[in-house]
Amino acid sequence: MYDNERVDDLLTHDLHIIQSDEVFSFSMDAVLLARFASIPNYGRVLDLCTGNGVIPLLLSTRTKAAIEGIEIQPRVADMARRSVEMNGLAERILIREGDLRELAQNTGHGVYDAITVNPPYMPLTGGDLKLNRHQAIARHEIHCSLEDVAIAAMRLVRPGGKVSMVHKPQRLGEIVTVLRQHRLEPKLIRFVHPRAGAEANMVLIEALRDGKPDLRVLPPLIVYGEDGQYCREIMDIYYGPKEGKR
Amino acid sequence: MYDNERVDDLLTHDLHIIQSDEVFSFSMDAVLLARFASIPNYGRVLDLCTGNGVIPLLLSTRTKAAIEGIEIQPRVADMARRSVEMNGLAERILIREGDLRELAQNTGHGVYDAITVNPPYMPLTGGDLKLNRHQAIARHEIHCSLEDVAIAAMRLVRPGGKVSMVHKPQRLGEIVTVLRQHRLEPKLIRFVHPRAGAEANMVLIEALRDGKPDLRVLPPLIVYGEDGQYCREIMDIYYGPKEGKR
Repeated sequence: MYDNERVDDLLTHDLHIIQSDEVFSFSMDAVLLARFASIPNYGRVLDLCTGNGVIPLLLSTRTKAAIEGIEIQPRVADMARRSVEMNGLAERILIREGDLRELAQNTGHGVYDAITVNPPYMPLTGGDLKLNRHQAIARHEIHCSLEDVAIAAMRLVRPGGKVSMVHKPQRLGEIVTVLRQHRLEPKLIRFVHPRAGAEANMVLIEALRDGKPDLRVLPPLIVYGEDGQYCREIMDIYYGPKEGKR
Repeated sequence: MYDNERVDDLLTHDLHIIQSDEVFSFSMDAVLLARFASIPNYGRVLDLCTGNGVIPLLLSTRTKAAIEGIEIQPRVADMARRSVEMNGLAERILIREGDLRELAQNTGHGVYDAITVNPPYMPLTGGDLKLNRHQAIARHEIHCSLEDVAIAAMRLVRPGGKVSMVHKPQRLGEIVTVLRQHRLEPKLIRFVHPRAGAEANMVLIEALRDGKPDLRVLPPLIVYGEDGQYCREIMDIYYGPKEGKR
Protein backbone atom coordinates (compact mmCIF):
# COMPACT_ATOMS: atom_id res chain seq x y z
CA MET A 1 0.00 0.00 0.00
CA TYR A 2 1.21 3.47 -0.85
CA ASP A 3 0.57 6.78 0.81
CA ASN A 4 -2.99 8.03 0.51
CA GLU A 5 -4.32 4.65 -0.54
CA ARG A 6 -7.11 2.88 1.30
CA VAL A 7 -9.01 -0.39 0.94
CA ASP A 8 -12.76 -0.08 0.36
CA ASP A 9 -15.41 -2.77 0.57
CA LEU A 10 -17.17 -3.46 -2.75
CA LEU A 11 -20.17 -4.57 -0.67
CA THR A 12 -20.69 -7.79 -2.60
CA HIS A 13 -19.05 -11.23 -2.64
CA ASP A 14 -16.49 -10.05 -0.02
CA LEU A 15 -14.67 -8.06 -2.67
CA HIS A 16 -12.33 -5.24 -1.71
CA ILE A 17 -10.60 -2.58 -3.77
CA ILE A 18 -7.63 -0.26 -3.39
CA GLN A 19 -8.57 3.38 -3.90
CA SER A 20 -6.99 6.77 -3.62
CA ASP A 21 -8.73 10.09 -3.85
CA GLU A 22 -5.59 11.57 -5.36
CA VAL A 23 -5.09 8.87 -7.99
CA PHE A 24 -8.29 6.97 -8.74
CA SER A 25 -11.47 6.03 -6.95
CA PHE A 26 -14.52 4.60 -8.65
CA SER A 27 -18.00 6.13 -8.81
CA MET A 28 -21.54 4.79 -9.06
CA ASP A 29 -21.23 4.95 -12.86
CA ALA A 30 -18.84 1.98 -12.88
CA VAL A 31 -21.07 -0.04 -10.55
CA LEU A 32 -24.13 0.55 -12.73
CA LEU A 33 -22.22 -0.35 -15.90
CA ALA A 34 -20.92 -3.58 -14.32
CA ARG A 35 -24.54 -4.56 -13.68
CA PHE A 36 -26.01 -3.26 -16.95
CA ALA A 37 -23.50 -4.84 -19.33
CA SER A 38 -24.45 -8.03 -21.15
CA ILE A 39 -21.63 -10.43 -20.35
CA PRO A 40 -21.28 -13.95 -21.71
CA ASN A 41 -20.87 -16.79 -19.20
CA TYR A 42 -17.66 -17.93 -20.85
CA GLY A 43 -15.15 -16.51 -23.30
CA ARG A 44 -13.12 -13.31 -23.04
CA VAL A 45 -14.28 -9.99 -21.72
CA LEU A 46 -12.34 -6.73 -21.81
CA ASP A 47 -12.76 -3.53 -19.82
CA LEU A 48 -11.25 -0.45 -21.47
CA CYS A 49 -10.10 2.51 -19.32
CA THR A 50 -10.31 0.14 -16.38
CA GLY A 51 -8.92 2.54 -13.76
CA ASN A 52 -8.45 0.71 -10.46
CA GLY A 53 -10.15 -2.37 -11.89
CA VAL A 54 -13.56 -1.90 -10.28
CA ILE A 55 -15.46 -3.19 -13.32
CA PRO A 56 -13.39 -6.38 -13.81
CA LEU A 57 -13.74 -7.10 -10.08
CA LEU A 58 -17.52 -6.68 -10.17
CA LEU A 59 -17.88 -8.61 -13.45
CA SER A 60 -16.03 -11.56 -11.88
CA THR A 61 -19.13 -12.15 -9.74
CA ARG A 62 -21.33 -12.51 -12.83
CA THR A 63 -19.36 -14.66 -15.27
CA LYS A 64 -16.81 -17.44 -15.61
CA ALA A 65 -15.29 -15.65 -18.62
CA ALA A 66 -11.64 -14.62 -18.59
CA ILE A 67 -11.65 -10.91 -17.75
CA GLU A 68 -9.08 -8.36 -18.79
CA GLY A 69 -8.76 -4.67 -18.12
CA ILE A 70 -6.50 -2.12 -19.75
CA GLU A 71 -5.33 1.07 -18.11
CA ILE A 72 -2.93 3.63 -19.54
CA GLN A 73 -1.64 5.07 -16.26
CA PRO A 74 1.07 2.84 -14.73
CA ARG A 75 0.32 4.02 -11.21
CA VAL A 76 -3.40 3.21 -11.64
CA ALA A 77 -2.83 -0.09 -13.44
CA ASP A 78 -0.61 -1.10 -10.53
CA MET A 79 -3.41 -0.32 -8.07
CA ALA A 80 -5.77 -2.47 -10.14
CA ARG A 81 -3.29 -5.39 -10.19
CA ARG A 82 -2.82 -5.25 -6.45
CA SER A 83 -6.60 -5.22 -5.95
CA VAL A 84 -6.95 -8.29 -8.17
CA GLU A 85 -4.28 -10.10 -6.16
CA MET A 86 -5.75 -8.99 -2.84
CA ASN A 87 -9.04 -10.63 -3.87
CA GLY A 88 -7.31 -13.83 -5.02
CA LEU A 89 -8.54 -13.28 -8.58
CA ALA A 90 -5.21 -13.23 -10.44
CA GLU A 91 -6.20 -16.44 -12.26
CA ARG A 92 -9.36 -14.84 -13.61
CA ILE A 93 -8.53 -11.16 -14.14
CA LEU A 94 -5.59 -9.83 -16.15
CA ILE A 95 -4.76 -6.14 -15.87
CA ARG A 96 -2.81 -4.76 -18.82
CA GLU A 97 -0.93 -1.51 -18.61
CA GLY A 98 -1.06 0.18 -21.98
CA ASP A 99 -2.76 2.30 -24.57
CA LEU A 100 -6.07 0.98 -25.91
CA ARG A 101 -5.18 2.49 -29.29
CA GLU A 102 -2.41 -0.11 -29.60
CA LEU A 103 -4.08 -3.09 -27.95
CA ALA A 104 -5.49 -4.72 -31.09
CA GLN A 105 -1.94 -5.01 -32.42
CA ASN A 106 -0.98 -7.04 -29.38
CA THR A 107 -4.04 -9.21 -28.87
CA GLY A 108 -5.45 -9.51 -32.38
CA HIS A 109 -8.69 -8.26 -33.90
CA GLY A 110 -12.11 -9.49 -32.74
CA VAL A 111 -10.76 -11.67 -29.95
CA TYR A 112 -13.12 -10.44 -27.22
CA ASP A 113 -16.72 -11.57 -26.78
CA ALA A 114 -17.77 -8.43 -24.92
CA ILE A 115 -16.29 -5.08 -24.00
CA THR A 116 -17.15 -2.62 -21.25
CA VAL A 117 -15.95 0.96 -20.97
CA ASN A 118 -16.38 3.87 -18.56
CA PRO A 119 -14.34 6.39 -20.56
CA PRO A 120 -13.25 9.91 -19.65
CA TYR A 121 -16.40 12.02 -19.95
CA MET A 122 -15.00 15.44 -20.68
CA PRO A 123 -13.69 16.75 -23.99
CA LEU A 124 -10.15 18.03 -24.07
CA THR A 125 -11.29 21.61 -24.32
CA GLY A 126 -11.67 23.42 -21.08
CA GLY A 127 -10.08 21.59 -18.19
CA ASP A 128 -10.47 21.71 -14.48
CA LEU A 129 -7.57 23.30 -12.64
CA LYS A 130 -8.50 21.52 -9.43
CA LEU A 131 -7.56 18.16 -10.94
CA ASN A 132 -4.09 16.66 -10.64
CA ARG A 133 -2.60 14.79 -13.61
CA HIS A 134 -3.99 11.37 -12.59
CA GLN A 135 -7.50 12.73 -12.17
CA ALA A 136 -7.34 14.76 -15.36
CA ILE A 137 -6.41 11.68 -17.42
CA ALA A 138 -9.30 9.70 -15.94
CA ARG A 139 -11.85 12.45 -16.58
CA HIS A 140 -10.72 14.28 -19.70
CA GLU A 141 -10.08 12.91 -23.16
CA ILE A 142 -6.35 13.40 -22.86
CA HIS A 143 -5.20 9.96 -23.94
CA CYS A 144 -8.42 8.64 -25.36
CA SER A 145 -11.26 10.37 -27.15
CA LEU A 146 -14.72 8.96 -27.78
CA GLU A 147 -13.52 8.06 -31.24
CA ASP A 148 -10.41 6.27 -29.90
CA VAL A 149 -12.71 4.21 -27.67
CA ALA A 150 -15.07 3.35 -30.53
CA ILE A 151 -12.25 2.38 -32.89
CA ALA A 152 -10.55 0.23 -30.25
CA ALA A 153 -13.81 -1.46 -29.25
CA MET A 154 -14.77 -2.12 -32.87
CA ARG A 155 -11.42 -3.74 -33.58
CA LEU A 156 -11.26 -5.75 -30.38
CA VAL A 157 -14.80 -7.17 -30.16
CA ARG A 158 -15.91 -10.02 -32.36
CA PRO A 159 -18.70 -9.47 -34.91
CA GLY A 160 -21.95 -9.90 -33.00
CA GLY A 161 -20.21 -9.06 -29.73
CA LYS A 162 -21.52 -6.40 -27.38
CA VAL A 163 -19.90 -3.17 -26.26
CA SER A 164 -21.38 -1.55 -23.13
CA MET A 165 -20.60 2.00 -22.11
CA VAL A 166 -21.55 4.47 -19.43
CA HIS A 167 -21.34 8.15 -20.26
CA LYS A 168 -22.98 11.53 -19.84
CA PRO A 169 -26.30 12.23 -21.63
CA GLN A 170 -24.89 15.60 -22.70
CA ARG A 171 -22.67 13.78 -25.18
CA LEU A 172 -25.22 11.22 -26.40
CA GLY A 173 -25.49 12.77 -29.85
CA GLU A 174 -21.76 12.41 -30.42
CA ILE A 175 -21.70 8.95 -28.83
CA VAL A 176 -24.40 7.58 -31.11
CA THR A 177 -22.77 9.09 -34.20
CA VAL A 178 -19.28 7.84 -33.39
CA LEU A 179 -20.39 4.33 -32.40
CA ARG A 180 -22.42 3.96 -35.60
CA GLN A 181 -19.55 5.29 -37.72
CA HIS A 182 -17.49 2.41 -36.36
CA ARG A 183 -20.00 -0.39 -36.89
CA LEU A 184 -21.22 -0.41 -33.30
CA GLU A 185 -25.00 -0.14 -33.46
CA PRO A 186 -26.73 1.06 -30.29
CA LYS A 187 -29.32 -1.58 -29.31
CA LEU A 188 -30.18 -0.82 -25.70
CA ILE A 189 -30.14 2.41 -23.74
CA ARG A 190 -31.00 3.13 -20.14
CA PHE A 191 -30.99 6.59 -18.62
CA VAL A 192 -30.17 7.18 -14.98
CA HIS A 193 -32.00 10.03 -13.25
CA PRO A 194 -30.95 11.18 -9.77
CA ARG A 195 -34.63 11.67 -8.83
CA ALA A 196 -37.93 10.84 -10.55
CA GLY A 197 -38.55 14.39 -11.76
CA ALA A 198 -34.96 15.22 -12.71
CA GLU A 199 -33.10 15.18 -16.00
CA ALA A 200 -30.86 12.19 -16.68
CA ASN A 201 -27.27 12.54 -15.46
CA MET A 202 -25.96 9.23 -16.74
CA VAL A 203 -26.61 6.99 -19.73
CA LEU A 204 -25.92 3.28 -20.15
CA ILE A 205 -25.57 2.10 -23.74
CA GLU A 206 -25.15 -1.33 -25.25
CA ALA A 207 -24.04 -1.53 -28.87
CA LEU A 208 -23.76 -4.57 -31.11
CA ARG A 209 -20.82 -4.96 -33.49
CA ASP A 210 -22.36 -5.07 -36.99
CA GLY A 211 -25.90 -4.91 -35.58
CA LYS A 212 -28.93 -3.61 -37.44
CA PRO A 213 -30.61 -0.40 -36.26
CA ASP A 214 -33.27 -1.30 -33.69
CA LEU A 215 -32.95 0.46 -30.38
CA ARG A 216 -34.77 -0.26 -27.12
CA VAL A 217 -34.97 2.39 -24.40
CA LEU A 218 -35.40 0.70 -21.03
CA PRO A 219 -37.43 2.12 -18.15
CA PRO A 220 -35.48 4.87 -16.40
CA LEU A 221 -33.28 3.98 -13.46
CA ILE A 222 -34.03 6.37 -10.59
CA VAL A 223 -31.30 6.68 -7.97
CA TYR A 224 -32.95 8.43 -5.01
CA GLY A 225 -36.51 8.07 -3.78
CA GLU A 226 -38.62 10.88 -2.40
CA ASP A 227 -37.29 10.00 1.06
CA GLY A 228 -33.74 10.83 -0.09
CA GLN A 229 -32.69 7.17 0.23
CA TYR A 230 -31.45 4.92 -2.56
CA CYS A 231 -34.27 3.31 -4.52
CA ARG A 232 -34.79 -0.44 -4.22
CA GLU A 233 -33.10 -1.19 -7.55
CA ILE A 234 -29.95 0.73 -6.61
CA MET A 235 -29.79 -1.13 -3.31
CA ASP A 236 -30.12 -4.41 -5.19
CA ILE A 237 -27.35 -3.41 -7.59
CA TYR A 238 -24.99 -2.49 -4.74
CA TYR A 239 -25.80 -5.20 -2.23
CA GLY A 240 -27.62 -8.04 -3.84
CA PRO A 241 -26.53 -9.11 -7.28
CA LYS A 242 -29.21 -11.25 -8.85
CA GLU A 243 -26.88 -13.66 -10.54
CA GLY A 244 -26.14 -12.39 -14.03
CA LYS A 245 -29.64 -11.09 -14.76
CA ARG A 246 -30.38 -7.49 -15.62
CA MET B 1 -67.89 16.52 -45.23
CA TYR B 2 -67.20 13.36 -47.16
CA ASP B 3 -68.16 9.78 -46.48
CA ASN B 4 -66.49 8.25 -43.47
CA GLU B 5 -65.40 11.60 -42.10
CA ARG B 6 -66.29 12.76 -38.62
CA VAL B 7 -65.61 15.84 -36.49
CA ASP B 8 -63.72 15.24 -33.26
CA ASP B 9 -63.23 17.58 -30.34
CA LEU B 10 -59.59 18.57 -29.72
CA LEU B 11 -60.57 19.04 -26.06
CA THR B 12 -58.91 22.43 -25.76
CA HIS B 13 -59.81 26.00 -26.79
CA ASP B 14 -63.03 24.72 -28.45
CA LEU B 15 -61.03 23.34 -31.35
CA HIS B 16 -62.48 20.67 -33.61
CA ILE B 17 -60.90 18.52 -36.30
CA ILE B 18 -62.07 16.49 -39.27
CA GLN B 19 -60.87 12.91 -39.12
CA SER B 20 -61.37 9.67 -40.99
CA ASP B 21 -60.19 6.26 -39.94
CA GLU B 22 -59.77 5.36 -43.58
CA VAL B 23 -57.79 8.46 -44.54
CA PHE B 24 -56.14 10.11 -41.55
CA SER B 25 -56.74 10.46 -37.85
CA PHE B 26 -54.22 11.79 -35.37
CA SER B 27 -52.70 9.95 -32.46
CA MET B 28 -51.35 10.93 -29.05
CA ASP B 29 -47.91 11.37 -30.64
CA ALA B 30 -49.05 14.54 -32.42
CA VAL B 31 -50.62 15.96 -29.26
CA LEU B 32 -47.44 15.38 -27.25
CA LEU B 33 -45.29 16.94 -29.96
CA ALA B 34 -47.53 20.01 -30.16
CA ARG B 35 -46.94 20.51 -26.43
CA PHE B 36 -43.23 19.57 -26.37
CA ALA B 37 -42.10 21.74 -29.28
CA SER B 38 -40.39 25.05 -28.54
CA ILE B 39 -42.39 27.57 -30.53
CA PRO B 40 -41.60 31.29 -30.79
CA ASN B 41 -44.37 33.73 -29.90
CA TYR B 42 -44.10 35.44 -33.28
CA GLY B 43 -42.57 34.67 -36.67
CA ARG B 44 -43.22 31.71 -38.94
CA VAL B 45 -43.68 28.10 -37.89
CA LEU B 46 -43.96 25.12 -40.22
CA ASP B 47 -45.34 21.63 -39.61
CA LEU B 48 -44.01 19.01 -42.04
CA CYS B 49 -46.11 15.91 -42.82
CA THR B 50 -49.02 17.76 -41.27
CA GLY B 51 -51.71 15.18 -42.05
CA ASN B 52 -55.12 16.52 -41.06
CA GLY B 53 -53.50 19.58 -39.50
CA VAL B 54 -53.73 18.54 -35.87
CA ILE B 55 -50.36 20.04 -34.94
CA PRO B 56 -50.98 23.48 -36.56
CA LEU B 57 -54.39 23.60 -34.86
CA LEU B 58 -52.91 22.80 -31.44
CA LEU B 59 -49.95 25.16 -31.94
CA SER B 60 -52.34 28.01 -32.69
CA THR B 61 -53.28 27.96 -28.99
CA ARG B 62 -49.67 28.53 -27.94
CA THR B 63 -48.35 31.22 -30.29
CA LYS B 64 -49.20 34.26 -32.36
CA ALA B 65 -46.79 33.11 -35.07
CA ALA B 66 -47.99 32.47 -38.59
CA ILE B 67 -48.39 28.69 -38.84
CA GLU B 68 -48.10 26.60 -41.98
CA GLY B 69 -48.46 22.92 -42.60
CA ILE B 70 -47.47 20.89 -45.63
CA GLU B 71 -49.09 17.60 -46.61
CA ILE B 72 -48.36 15.56 -49.72
CA GLN B 73 -51.71 13.78 -50.02
CA PRO B 74 -54.33 16.02 -51.68
CA ARG B 75 -57.20 14.26 -49.94
CA VAL B 76 -55.58 14.74 -46.52
CA ALA B 77 -54.45 18.32 -47.17
CA ASP B 78 -58.05 19.10 -48.11
CA MET B 79 -59.25 17.68 -44.77
CA ALA B 80 -56.70 19.87 -42.99
CA ARG B 81 -57.83 23.00 -44.86
CA ARG B 82 -61.46 22.35 -44.04
CA SER B 83 -60.58 21.86 -40.37
CA VAL B 84 -58.71 25.16 -40.34
CA GLU B 85 -61.72 26.92 -41.86
CA MET B 86 -64.15 25.18 -39.53
CA ASN B 87 -62.19 26.63 -36.57
CA GLY B 88 -62.06 30.12 -38.09
CA LEU B 89 -58.26 29.97 -38.26
CA ALA B 90 -57.73 30.55 -41.99
CA GLU B 91 -56.01 33.87 -41.23
CA ARG B 92 -53.47 32.17 -38.98
CA ILE B 93 -52.89 28.72 -40.49
CA LEU B 94 -51.94 28.02 -44.10
CA ILE B 95 -52.11 24.43 -45.32
CA ARG B 96 -49.93 23.72 -48.34
CA GLU B 97 -50.47 20.68 -50.50
CA GLY B 98 -47.13 19.50 -51.76
CA ASP B 99 -43.89 17.62 -51.37
CA LEU B 100 -41.59 18.78 -48.57
CA ARG B 101 -38.62 17.90 -50.77
CA GLU B 102 -39.59 20.78 -53.06
CA LEU B 103 -40.81 23.29 -50.50
CA ALA B 104 -37.55 25.21 -50.01
CA GLN B 105 -37.61 26.05 -53.72
CA ASN B 106 -41.01 27.71 -53.27
CA THR B 107 -40.60 29.46 -49.93
CA GLY B 108 -36.88 30.11 -49.80
CA HIS B 109 -34.19 28.79 -47.47
CA GLY B 110 -34.15 29.47 -43.73
CA VAL B 111 -37.46 31.34 -43.71
CA TYR B 112 -39.04 29.49 -40.77
CA ASP B 113 -38.27 30.15 -37.11
CA ALA B 114 -39.30 26.69 -35.96
CA ILE B 115 -40.35 23.41 -37.53
CA THR B 116 -42.34 20.50 -36.18
CA VAL B 117 -42.67 17.06 -37.72
CA ASN B 118 -44.45 13.80 -36.94
CA PRO B 119 -43.04 11.83 -39.88
CA PRO B 120 -43.93 8.34 -41.12
CA TYR B 121 -42.31 5.97 -38.60
CA MET B 122 -41.79 2.84 -40.66
CA PRO B 123 -39.04 2.20 -43.19
CA LEU B 124 -40.12 1.32 -46.69
CA THR B 125 -39.07 -2.29 -46.26
CA GLY B 126 -41.77 -4.57 -44.98
CA GLY B 127 -45.19 -3.04 -45.30
CA ASP B 128 -48.48 -3.73 -43.67
CA LEU B 129 -51.03 -5.26 -46.00
CA LYS B 130 -53.90 -4.13 -43.79
CA LEU B 131 -53.18 -0.48 -44.65
CA ASN B 132 -54.85 1.31 -47.53
CA ARG B 133 -52.85 3.73 -49.65
CA HIS B 134 -53.63 6.79 -47.50
CA GLN B 135 -52.64 5.04 -44.30
CA ALA B 136 -49.52 3.53 -45.85
CA ILE B 137 -48.26 6.96 -46.96
CA ALA B 138 -48.81 8.39 -43.48
CA ARG B 139 -47.04 5.53 -41.73
CA HIS B 140 -44.33 4.30 -44.10
CA GLU B 141 -41.48 6.23 -45.69
CA ILE B 142 -43.05 6.09 -49.12
CA HIS B 143 -42.82 9.76 -50.04
CA CYS B 144 -40.47 10.93 -47.34
CA SER B 145 -37.62 9.20 -45.56
CA LEU B 146 -35.97 10.34 -42.35
CA GLU B 147 -33.26 11.85 -44.50
CA ASP B 148 -35.79 13.73 -46.66
CA VAL B 149 -37.26 15.19 -43.46
CA ALA B 150 -33.84 16.21 -42.12
CA ILE B 151 -32.77 17.80 -45.40
CA ALA B 152 -36.04 19.71 -45.77
CA ALA B 153 -35.97 20.89 -42.15
CA MET B 154 -32.33 21.97 -42.38
CA ARG B 155 -33.05 24.00 -45.51
CA LEU B 156 -36.27 25.53 -44.27
CA VAL B 157 -35.36 26.53 -40.70
CA ARG B 158 -33.21 29.55 -39.99
CA PRO B 159 -29.79 29.11 -38.34
CA GLY B 160 -30.45 28.89 -34.61
CA GLY B 161 -34.03 27.78 -35.25
CA LYS B 162 -35.49 24.67 -33.62
CA VAL B 163 -36.76 21.49 -35.23
CA SER B 164 -38.98 19.29 -33.04
CA MET B 165 -39.84 15.72 -33.95
CA VAL B 166 -41.75 12.80 -32.52
CA HIS B 167 -40.67 9.31 -33.55
CA LYS B 168 -40.13 5.76 -32.36
CA PRO B 169 -37.21 4.99 -30.00
CA GLN B 170 -36.38 1.97 -32.17
CA ARG B 171 -35.05 4.37 -34.79
CA LEU B 172 -33.27 6.81 -32.48
CA GLY B 173 -29.80 5.76 -33.62
CA GLU B 174 -30.65 6.59 -37.22
CA ILE B 175 -32.49 9.76 -36.23
CA VAL B 176 -29.55 11.18 -34.28
CA THR B 177 -27.12 10.32 -37.06
CA VAL B 178 -29.24 11.78 -39.85
CA LEU B 179 -30.11 14.97 -37.97
CA ARG B 180 -26.46 15.61 -37.13
CA GLN B 181 -25.38 14.90 -40.70
CA HIS B 182 -27.67 17.75 -41.72
CA ARG B 183 -26.56 20.33 -39.15
CA LEU B 184 -29.47 19.69 -36.81
CA GLU B 185 -27.94 19.06 -33.39
CA PRO B 186 -30.16 17.21 -30.88
CA LYS B 187 -30.41 19.40 -27.76
CA LEU B 188 -33.39 18.04 -25.85
CA ILE B 189 -34.90 14.56 -25.70
CA ARG B 190 -37.86 13.24 -23.79
CA PHE B 191 -38.91 9.63 -23.79
CA VAL B 192 -42.52 8.58 -23.40
CA HIS B 193 -43.18 5.33 -21.53
CA PRO B 194 -46.67 3.80 -21.49
CA ARG B 195 -46.20 2.80 -17.84
CA ALA B 196 -43.50 3.52 -15.22
CA GLY B 197 -41.79 0.14 -15.60
CA ALA B 198 -42.11 -0.16 -19.38
CA GLU B 199 -39.71 0.56 -22.22
CA ALA B 200 -40.18 3.83 -24.08
CA ASN B 201 -42.55 3.67 -27.05
CA MET B 202 -42.19 7.25 -28.22
CA VAL B 203 -39.40 9.83 -28.29
CA LEU B 204 -39.65 13.62 -28.53
CA ILE B 205 -36.55 15.35 -29.89
CA GLU B 206 -35.64 18.99 -30.29
CA ALA B 207 -32.71 19.84 -32.52
CA LEU B 208 -31.02 23.19 -33.08
CA ARG B 209 -29.91 24.22 -36.55
CA ASP B 210 -26.10 24.70 -36.31
CA GLY B 211 -26.16 23.97 -32.58
CA LYS B 212 -23.22 22.64 -30.58
CA PRO B 213 -23.38 19.14 -29.08
CA ASP B 214 -24.91 19.36 -25.61
CA LEU B 215 -27.93 17.18 -25.04
CA ARG B 216 -30.38 17.23 -22.15
CA VAL B 217 -32.56 14.20 -21.42
CA LEU B 218 -35.71 15.32 -19.62
CA PRO B 219 -37.52 13.29 -16.96
CA PRO B 220 -39.54 10.51 -18.61
CA LEU B 221 -43.16 11.18 -19.53
CA ILE B 222 -45.30 8.33 -18.20
CA VAL B 223 -48.69 7.91 -19.89
CA TYR B 224 -50.67 5.59 -17.61
CA GLY B 225 -50.56 5.39 -13.83
CA GLU B 226 -50.79 2.19 -11.81
CA ASP B 227 -54.56 2.70 -11.74
CA GLY B 228 -54.71 2.41 -15.55
CA GLN B 229 -55.74 6.07 -15.89
CA TYR B 230 -53.84 8.82 -17.65
CA CYS B 231 -51.18 10.41 -15.44
CA ARG B 232 -51.65 14.00 -14.33
CA GLU B 233 -49.24 15.40 -16.91
CA ILE B 234 -51.03 13.69 -19.80
CA MET B 235 -54.35 15.05 -18.55
CA ASP B 236 -52.82 18.52 -18.39
CA ILE B 237 -51.48 18.19 -21.94
CA TYR B 238 -54.86 17.10 -23.30
CA TYR B 239 -57.17 19.31 -21.30
CA GLY B 240 -55.32 22.15 -19.70
CA PRO B 241 -52.63 23.84 -21.76
CA LYS B 242 -50.40 25.91 -19.49
CA GLU B 243 -49.87 28.76 -21.87
CA GLY B 244 -46.76 28.13 -23.88
CA LYS B 245 -44.69 26.61 -21.08
CA ARG B 246 -43.24 23.15 -21.22
